[in-house]
Amino acid sequence: MKVIVAHAAKDLRIETREMPSPGPGQVLIKMAAGGICGSDLHYFNHGGFGTVRLKEPMILGHEVSGHVEALGAGVSALSKGDLVAISPSRPCGQCKYCQEGNQNHCLNMRFYGSAMPFPHIQGAFREYIVADVAQCAVATGLTKGEAAMAEPLAVVLNAAGHAGDLMGKRVLVTGCGPIGLLAVLVARAAGAVEIVATDISDFTLSKAREVGADETVNVADTPDGLAKFEVEKGHFDVLFECSGVATALASAVPAMRPGGVIAQLGLGGDMLLPVQAMTAKELQLKGSFRFHAEFFTAVEMMRQGRLNVGPLITHELKIDDAVKAFDLASDRSKAIKVNVAF
Amino acid sequence: MKVIVAHAAKDLRIETREMPSPGPGQVLIKMAAGGICGSDLHYFNHGGFGTVRLKEPMILGHEVSGHVEALGAGVSALSKGDLVAISPSRPCGQCKYCQEGNQNHCLNMRFYGSAMPFPHIQGAFREYIVADVAQCAVATGLTKGEAAMAEPLAVVLNAAGHAGDLMGKRVLVTGCGPIGLLAVLVARAAGAVEIVATDISDFTLSKAREVGADETVNVADTPDGLAKFEVEKGHFDVLFECSGVATALASAVPAMRPGGVIAQLGLGGDMLLPVQAMTAKELQLKGSFRFHAEFFTAVEMMRQGRLNVGPLITHELKIDDAVKAFDLASDRSKAIKVNVAF
Amino acid sequence: MKVIVAHAAKDLRIETREMPSPGPGQVLIKMAAGGICGSDLHYFNHGGFGTVRLKEPMILGHEVSGHVEALGAGVSALSKGDLVAISPSRPCGQCKYCQEGNQNHCLNMRFYGSAMPFPHIQGAFREYIVADVAQCAVATGLTKGEAAMAEPLAVVLNAAGHAGDLMGKRVLVTGCGPIGLLAVLVARAAGAVEIVATDISDFTLSKAREVGADETVNVADTPDGLAKFEVEKGHFDVLFECSGVATALASAVPAMRPGGVIAQLGLGGDMLLPVQAMTAKELQLKGSFRFHAEFFTAVEMMRQGRLNVGPLITHELKIDDAVKAFDLASDRSKAIKVNVAF
Amino acid sequence: MKVIVAHAAKDLRIETREMPSPGPGQVLIKMAAGGICGSDLHYFNHGGFGTVRLKEPMILGHEVSGHVEALGAGVSALSKGDLVAISPSRPCGQCKYCQEGNQNHCLNMRFYGSAMPFPHIQGAFREYIVADVAQCAVATGLTKGEAAMAEPLAVVLNAAGHAGDLMGKRVLVTGCGPIGLLAVLVARAAGAVEIVATDISDFTLSKAREVGADETVNVADTPDGLAKFEVEKGHFDVLFECSGVATALASAVPAMRPGGVIAQLGLGGDMLLPVQAMTAKELQLKGSFRFHAEFFTAVEMMRQGRLNVGPLITHELKIDDAVKAFDLASDRSKAIKVNVAF
Repeated sequence: MKVIVAHAAKDLRIETREMPSPGPGQVLIKMAAGGICGSDLHYFNHGGFGTVRLKEPMILGHEVSGHVEALGAGVSALSKGDLVAISPSRPCGQCKYCQEGNQNHCLNMRFYGSAMPFPHIQGAFREYIVADVAQCAVATGLTKGEAAMAEPLAVVLNAAGHAGDLMGKRVLVTGCGPIGLLAVLVARAAGAVEIVATDISDFTLSKAREVGADETVNVADTPDGLAKFEVEKGHFDVLFECSGVATALASAVPAMRPGGVIAQLGLGGDMLLPVQAMTAKELQLKGSFRFHAEFFTAVEMMRQGRLNVGPLITHELKIDDAVKAFDLASDRSKAIKVNVAF
Repeated sequence: MKVIVAHAAKDLRIETREMPSPGPGQVLIKMAAGGICGSDLHYFNHGGFGTVRLKEPMILGHEVSGHVEALGAGVSALSKGDLVAISPSRPCGQCKYCQEGNQNHCLNMRFYGSAMPFPHIQGAFREYIVADVAQCAVATGLTKGEAAMAEPLAVVLNAAGHAGDLMGKRVLVTGCGPIGLLAVLVARAAGAVEIVATDISDFTLSKAREVGADETVNVADTPDGLAKFEVEKGHFDVLFECSGVATALASAVPAMRPGGVIAQLGLGGDMLLPVQAMTAKELQLKGSFRFHAEFFTAVEMMRQGRLNVGPLITHELKIDDAVKAFDLASDRSKAIKVNVAF
Repeated sequence: MKVIVAHAAKDLRIETREMPSPGPGQVLIKMAAGGICGSDLHYFNHGGFGTVRLKEPMILGHEVSGHVEALGAGVSALSKGDLVAISPSRPCGQCKYCQEGNQNHCLNMRFYGSAMPFPHIQGAFREYIVADVAQCAVATGLTKGEAAMAEPLAVVLNAAGHAGDLMGKRVLVTGCGPIGLLAVLVARAAGAVEIVATDISDFTLSKAREVGADETVNVADTPDGLAKFEVEKGHFDVLFECSGVATALASAVPAMRPGGVIAQLGLGGDMLLPVQAMTAKELQLKGSFRFHAEFFTAVEMMRQGRLNVGPLITHELKIDDAVKAFDLASDRSKAIKVNVAF
Repeated sequence: MKVIVAHAAKDLRIETREMPSPGPGQVLIKMAAGGICGSDLHYFNHGGFGTVRLKEPMILGHEVSGHVEALGAGVSALSKGDLVAISPSRPCGQCKYCQEGNQNHCLNMRFYGSAMPFPHIQGAFREYIVADVAQCAVATGLTKGEAAMAEPLAVVLNAAGHAGDLMGKRVLVTGCGPIGLLAVLVARAAGAVEIVATDISDFTLSKAREVGADETVNVADTPDGLAKFEVEKGHFDVLFECSGVATALASAVPAMRPGGVIAQLGLGGDMLLPVQAMTAKELQLKGSFRFHAEFFTAVEMMRQGRLNVGPLITHELKIDDAVKAFDLASDRSKAIKVNVAF
């Protein structure tokens, strides 16, 4: 079977691997769609990010869906042919964080396509994969691309959990890549009364309006575009910071209400922040990282029609065009979510 | 000007009063619509409820909208002709609860149409009223009936605040009068993934489905209709208890998940509750009473199109038909919200 | 080895059982102390409580400590001779509640000495027991009796978690059995600024003052003893309800501040409660049931000297005097915690 | 009467002002003690901090106590001779933040001795002051110095409120000036099971141990002194960051448990922070600024003997020695809290 392997920056190869076979409690899945994530792009373009670097070849990919092809011993919860979204989160279930219900902080996490431990955890951009039944959410009624969006949607649902009740709240989203756009979508579905989004790409901002932003600001064109929200110590109750850019966060601080919450999703290394101003306003900067049970909520919300991620999937390319797909996904003027079809 | 006065159970009269005139910071309002609330019906049908009893004639009504007719000295925030929703909540602003931001527990509250203190606080079913600017929410773009719904909607938003983040949650609503139906509407707008509603009236349950319930149960016909939700220690994360009936709450307990939240909105006197079972499940029974700032959120949510209360307004009658309006509002097989037009 | 077995109400027997031996990851423990709990007394005096009834002989006991006697294969975290507090909480670790970190709601819980499932879960009043290492908290520096108090202390720590931050809060405790007295102790250690305790036994109230209550009220003598706390809509921020008696909870309601929290620990079947008054005050009745990780916090807090449970241990009797010990523990005018020594 | 006025960096003068007289609802207070705060020292040593700069002469001081000397019309809650702690927090009571109960974010705050608005708000280091009754907490039983500590203690209680329930928690305190030492004291009183404190002064660290720290680390001597707490993704549940130094916060991040809370009290301008690591750990950085109702809680906690701030008051000098007092307070190797006696 074919797999997509990153060897180093700008060295992405289609290789072959042996077919796996499912053990007890597992299923063999014929992959359908794989969404290219920002971290995949970091490996592809730069060989990693921050202290996380490629040290050996690694199969990329962790936003995936597929069809059940074969059942391991004892599996009854799934049937052959089922479309499933496959959670890349594989915590140990035994460590103290797992026992607390904080599986996203598992001491022994094996998250698909992650270079953090060594040997790296191989990813899911491959024609077949064996997964535990517990990783699979039945996605009947969704497209394969929507099913593959369960992963980034789960990331945003986790962040929304940190942000708290959004009903009637004023929400700012900085950075309108796929995560930022999903934050707009989730904030809208959670009852936010007003949503403003910023970015430096007119294309992504047009998508932001399409999925529910009331107003958008291109901060490349109008760097002081948030100034009007600074009256009476600020306007927004919640910020979803999805850019990982220090100036994006810093320039949002004066527009935040005292006591406001910043759900930090962007990963941008060290950042120079106006901590004194944030402290005087009693802002709450809450880091948000991955997810666990939210994966299943994400699939259910999509299946019930509460969240429509369709508009965010802009392209789909075949596995043999993987390099082209990664290049396209790197172009923020044209693409939001690019899917690889297996 | 005409007013609607309750003298005793089944003794409702149209009387006249002197026209008021606005002082500084106040406005004179020509009333437009007044929604008949359950408490109005208690005064009308029974002369009160629990220990709250009519002891002198009282003008009813606290869900009201109108048009600004004249401005008192120094008023610039409103203009003649503005449609406004008028908050019946008039806290003192000085007591310890007001200073904590818990105005709904003000020690000196003067809430329209309430027999709780004596002399009673006169209500707002009247052709004209003088209100403080701070009570008025501009309701441009809403119908007069929608504007009058700001009050019960604020009650439900306050309860939703107690229930917490509803995104992806499973919600049960017991009792589908106007408050229960608004709870369905709010839970839907706040991202609940599943909503089940119960009542004993097929008419109200049909409305529940219309405003967003996924499933309804007529517990008069099928008293064990919630039994299927009792598997694995229960199904629902949140219950909006809007009936005030002990058996409604008690029969929902086995269907609640451990740690679930019950937002108690129904006012039903003393109740015999399965406290041992509630304790073993670590349920949280949270009383919800009135509102304050939520009134303005309610109006803004409606104006932004996030919440459509229109389907709940089933009837509108003229002030001279007030008795007929109250009789109609008492009939749960036909009416949800009955408005008096002034 | 000897065990203490309840056959029916007032039929408690000392019997013998085969010695167990530890498997991998387990230890054999020579029991040291066993505290008699209210539920043990219910089995002893009445054959059960509510719907929980003895249907077969059951070894009682779940508040226990002992010394490690032998190590099973692969055990290195404990040494022979260690004094350990043994958690009676044995969740499955696999069900959805365990995975959420809510092990106290495990679908397959095997809690020592509990008649809830059938066959009953046998208890820990026995000369030897085999326990998993994960159940054992090293209790070096504590007395055997203090170590046995880890269990009820964990119950109260769980309830305190539901009550939230107690720093500077005013706390009421209704019912001063061992749980209520531990609530006084915990509230004091958590920074409560004022603690008032009620009971109908002068003996337990004297203990309440000894462990930190600022004031006590014998509600048998002065049924309106809380009336002075009813001014300005109430005085107490938090109530630990430890009696399970409806009138205790109901009479505390007028003394609670709006928005106050009631941590419900007492298990008293169905209760007639003033729900309308509780709702108008927006009180929060939060059920509290068992514990899990709090067991280890309890032992650590005692070892660090933050909580001194010593004054609550009033008696210690030998296993052969078990009936006498249970009779004594049933007398609230003389005893708080009665320990059986093995 | 004499007052202590800062004209510019290193230009502190004793000047005279007219005696004030109390209006209705006010009292005249003969000042007793004034604690020198870090912000006073910033004005004294540097003419301000960050963007907050002296632009005109300003009376310093906001941690003060005194004796009631005369009552304005209508005052009955205080008596001549009462020792009172005087809150420097004077919010408007009318703006939206005041109405929400967030008086510390008042749009029109007049906080004693603050150069933030212009004209500056004059402070309370003066022989007499007129204060509103609502600013005064009766401090009978406390020393004048303890009463003056109500203000910084209120700051820490506010931060503890943001940190949440500390019972059984592991707490790190970075920076052991008066605020850090009060954080140690409060964490101990709130039931923290373990407290570790860091600083670069052995003197302040010895005080930290005196008021309850279990362990201290001089990070000047042992920069990697927290490394042992980094195992299993970190040890501390809560950090009170009281230094305002970016490296102090940054070096604590690896020692924090996933999901841990950082209550930020130190004010240090912009800070370069390891936001990626903080995000991956889902740390919560919560700004804490001033206080309001906590002032009265602070006084009550001290009066009830729950918190003993006495050991933190190291020096008391007469008003005529003000410059000497400010120099002494600037020397972290000798002084914690230096009081001016009036």
